[in-house]
Amino acid sequence: MQSATIDLAKALISRPSVTPADEGCQQMIGERLAALGFRLETMVFEDTTNLWARRGEPKDGKPLFCFAGHTDVVPPGDPADWDTPPFEPTLKDGYLFGRGAADMKGSLASMVVAVETFIQAHPELPFDIAFLITSDEEGPFINGTKRVIKTLEQRQEKIDWCIVGEPSSTEQLGDVVKNGRRGSLTGDLSVHGVQGHVAYPHLASNPVHSAAAALHQLATEQWDHGNQYFPSTTFQISNIHAGTGAGNVIPGRLDVQFNFRFSTELTAEQLKQRVASILDEHSLDYHINWTLNGPPFLTEPGTLVNAVTQAISRCCPYTPQLSTAGGTSDGRFIAPTGAQVVELGPVNATIHKVNECVKASDLDLLTEVYVACLQQLLEDETNKPC
Amino acid sequence: MQSATIDLAKALISRPSVTPADEGCQQMIGERLAALGFRLETMVFEDTTNLWARRGEPKDGKPLFCFAGHTDVVPPGDPADWDTPPFEPTLKDGYLFGRGAADMKGSLASMVVAVETFIQAHPELPFDIAFLITSDEEGPFINGTKRVIKTLEQRQEKIDWCIVGEPSSTEQLGDVVKNGRRGSLTGDLSVHGVQGHVAYPHLASNPVHSAAAALHQLATEQWDHGNQYFPSTTFQISNIHAGTGAGNVIPGRLDVQFNFRFSTELTAEQLKQRVASILDEHSLDYHINWTLNGPPFLTEPGTLVNAVTQAISRCCPYTPQLSTAGGTSDGRFIAPTGAQVVELGPVNATIHKVNECVKASDLDLLTEVYVACLQQLLEDETNKPC
Repeated sequence: MQSATIDLAKALISRPSVTPADEGCQQMIGERLAALGFRLETMVFEDTTNLWARRGEPKDGKPLFCFAGHTDVVPPGDPADWDTPPFEPTLKDGYLFGRGAADMKGSLASMVVAVETFIQAHPELPFDIAFLITSDEEGPFINGTKRVIKTLEQRQEKIDWCIVGEPSSTEQLGDVVKNGRRGSLTGDLSVHGVQGHVAYPHLASNPVHSAAAALHQLATEQWDHGNQYFPSTTFQISNIHAGTGAGNVIPGRLDVQFNFRFSTELTAEQLKQRVASILDEHSLDYHINWTLNGPPFLTEPGTLVNAVTQAISRCCPYTPQLSTAGGTSDGRFIAPTGAQVVELGPVNATIHKVNECVKASDLDLLTEVYVACLQQLLEDETNKPC
Repeated sequence: MQSATIDLAKALISRPSVTPADEGCQQMIGERLAALGFRLETMVFEDTTNLWARRGEPKDGKPLFCFAGHTDVVPPGDPADWDTPPFEPTLKDGYLFGRGAADMKGSLASMVVAVETFIQAHPELPFDIAFLITSDEEGPFINGTKRVIKTLEQRQEKIDWCIVGEPSSTEQLGDVVKNGRRGSLTGDLSVHGVQGHVAYPHLASNPVHSAAAALHQLATEQWDHGNQYFPSTTFQISNIHAGTGAGNVIPGRLDVQFNFRFSTELTAEQLKQRVASILDEHSLDYHINWTLNGPPFLTEPGTLVNAVTQAISRCCPYTPQLSTAGGTSDGRFIAPTGAQVVELGPVNATIHKVNECVKASDLDLLTEVYVACLQQLLEDETNKPC
């Protein structure tokens, strides 16, 4: 017998919503939420469909809890590489297979079923509940959460607590909760030289030669030592290119793209200044275009972290580890509004890979954990001193 | 009134022999040489036409003097960028304009007219004369001079003295004679790392990071100090590439192409060993494919250098400078047979550029210089102690 969570997860996985397509997933979720008294607001920005669903009105003055997630998935690659068709959800050996099973249609199903369960038990609540669901989390993240948040800010609608359903767990469901993420800063560096013939190097200036020592210094620099919540800031060169293809031409320009994942010990401005100072030390003629993909965010222990930790401890035989490691998520767009944000979802071992899957019992457990979170918030709000 | 040299140069320039095409240039030259008693041998290898023309038989036991050159030219680019059509030879303000005027149809015309003049005066000679003309000097130089030389070596036909008509002069005709060329050695280096996500650098190994210090060391290494004939050996990175294009992927491989121009102080083997030892010092996981484009060659002062120097001193109000600087030429294929090889041709300021040109009077002067070279060799051979 299948659970309501597995049923919904399967229904969602069967929609081939390769980013930025939604393929009706949000409508499926919206109908379930509308039945619980949620007011639905579909926000279409360019190629992206977003759903903002809220139970309770901003003017009621209650705090707002939000589940955030995405219905889009990464492309499956060649379906022939899969053991089962990527968009035919398949239960096998206790696992649910399909693109999006872990990232993150499983979480969406758990969220919806958790809210149904919770509201059935507690139709009257001291806080509002919302869903913020996008279809571009796996894409360029321009027209998704970022623009929904902008819209909410413009009308002064504010989220207090937010659980993002990203697959945060590593070995067992709930073993890791992300209570922040490192910042991401990209630099597109051009080092200028003078093109020429390799036979006449005195008439040219090779930017690869002049930049090599600076790149070595950037690659070996200790940017910080992190802190109790963040690992040390890392620097990685992702792309480097120079040369016309011809073997006898000294290139006139070197292009280097690099990326920082940085802790709250540093600001993007400080990183920019330190890079410039290293390049200046080497007397390079250069230009950098900077892109701040997202500043670091941190949700320190408080109401939400406590609720999530308690919930996991209640449902699972272990307490979760708080972590800020790993890639970026849409949490970076929500946290700057002042919301407490954590990420809690299934085990991430198979995400973005062929044969993506999630333990079926983990999705049911995740539903329980989400219910327990809401339960804990309810207790906290009810027992709050007036 | 135009000279015979200018007439022939114009006839050759009017043939659009963009490498590896010959467009009948060799036939035009061959007919003139046949009339002087040269035996013509056309050697077609793949897309390349070569002419080997010899006056005198190998079995006659006389030394062999050879003029070497090429009928192919580099592409003209957009003819609209030229003041006059590139394949319509045009005399203007004392200059002959057209693609190949300086590199090296002008030289070919001077060689032919010089030999006509010289043989008319000296039909009986103590040395044989040959022409080695190819149509792939500007191309991949696989099926040109290299294969003609191989053919000659197989039948034990040997050149003693060779003048290559490459534009060696810098300011005035004959101010520079090349009596050697640096070697050229290309390395295609791949440095191996482990691809990964920039957010998880501990799971990856960035080959750009690990190679940066080694590249800096290669770029700043003093390979030698040259010698009286050669400038110091130079190292240049011509191409460097790593990265998938994605900003969040640590590349798994770095590809670097570099080139040495090296003196006779070093061998290609020594350079390979020193590069390997630097890369090993940095514990890199790498592979190099080496291409020896040509070893260095040097024609030390002797019969040919003396003849050329004397000839220039006789025709021009200065003595030439001997040099081994600059790019490679087909001389590198001829010198290893044991031949004395020098390069002597017009001013190279406009070669491979739009509005390529040569001073018309320089071509006539070059004819005179070539005649004087032959004259000097004749005197040397005649006065040689038996």
